Amino acid sequence: MRIAVLGTGMVGQAVATRLAEVGHDVVMGARDAGNEKARAWAVQAGGRSGTFADAAAHGELVVNATSGAGSLAALEACGTANLDGKVLLDIANPLDFSQGMPPRLSVVNDDSLAERIQRAYPDARVVKSLNTVNASVMVHPEAVPGEHHVFICGDDAIAKQTVRGLLAEFGWPAPSVLDLGGLAAARGMEMYLPLWLAMMGALGTPTFNIRIVRGS
Amino acid sequence: MRIAVLGTGMVGQAVATRLAEVGHDVVMGARDAGNEKARAWAVQAGGRSGTFADAAAHGELVVNATSGAGSLAALEACGTANLDGKVLLDIANPLDFSQGMPPRLSVVNDDSLAERIQRAYPDARVVKSLNTVNASVMVHPEAVPGEHHVFICGDDAIAKQTVRGLLAEFGWPAPSVLDLGGLAAARGMEMYLPLWLAMMGALGTPTFNIRIVRGS
Repeated sequence: MRIAVLGTGMVGQAVATRLAEVGHDVVMGARDAGNEKARAWAVQAGGRSGTFADAAAHGELVVNATSGAGSLAALEACGTANLDGKVLLDIANPLDFSQGMPPRLSVVNDDSLAERIQRAYPDARVVKSLNTVNASVMVHPEAVPGEHHVFICGDDAIAKQTVRGLLAEFGWPAPSVLDLGGLAAARGMEMYLPLWLAMMGALGTPTFNIRIVRGS
Repeated sequence: MRIAVLGTGMVGQAVATRLAEVGHDVVMGARDAGNEKARAWAVQAGGRSGTFADAAAHGELVVNATSGAGSLAALEACGTANLDGKVLLDIANPLDFSQGMPPRLSVVNDDSLAERIQRAYPDARVVKSLNTVNASVMVHPEAVPGEHHVFICGDDAIAKQTVRGLLAEFGWPAPSVLDLGGLAAARGMEMYLPLWLAMMGALGTPTFNIRIVRGS
């Protein structure tokens, strides 16, 4: 599949590399066509790089792997026509580091970054997933032993199924993907981040995840 | 130990019953001395009931099991003198149901209910725990099979150790209690609730919990 990965940071690199590895035709998008990190990635991974608009024009599916604070600007740079009708996998978190550590969430309670994106691009088919784990765990779930879970939500069932396919390619067993329903569930998935950060601090590693255990 | 349980709802009943069961001298506190639910509990569990102030005066340790929206009023009714120097285990969540379901959180980001309580009662020794699981799981962790985790945080190490003792009596194995550090970690523990509610919806049961799995 032709895939755009927006974002050149740790998350964008990890996801773009893994997507190329499993056989997708990936363009990494950055603000500037000459972005060094995107160019270096393209050389190393055998993909291509370009502007956000270049990447989005290429992709049948678009992955938002930008920082949450920059997501709406990155999508604006893509242009509505390059997003309409496409599956838009949002894996970003609306973290605001402007007031120091730990970061605040810039969206809470009645809204989420995913829903903001959906409202800004009503013809994109937004799916939220993977934002609750570290980049390395996103694309190599076997980095955490045994069963553990990742969430998915969105208002478009076919788009969710498409993303489930990618998750399976990354190595997520189907029963490890918990569907939380419509895109409003992104609120909970994003508001989990402060607990994730506290756990990371207590555990001393970002390489962990949660396993959901049901009672009898 | 003499323990006050503030709150007569499902959480208060579950915690007070279990505390009495494992041998503590429990008084359940309610707004009114004649509260029917508290009286019925006292008869059934062999404990006593009274006003919030009666309960707090009795307790060497005070459990805040009121609804988050009523917590500060309940503690005010206890009176500062009945809280000063005591371990105050806060298991409430600042859920606001006034705008319908799902509830909003009335405190987020830079503050938490636990910290509000600590600021209102600076000489109380506030510990946050158990708010991330259903009442039945709080007091009977074996309701969920295998290993799964609960969090604890607070600024007073001795108070945390006291609460660890109660958690052990409830059946939580020591390695299943993850210390997230100071009371500010309550922010993450409380902001987890929207995800918990979404998981409950997807799983169709409130009897579940998360197991933290570390990577290698």
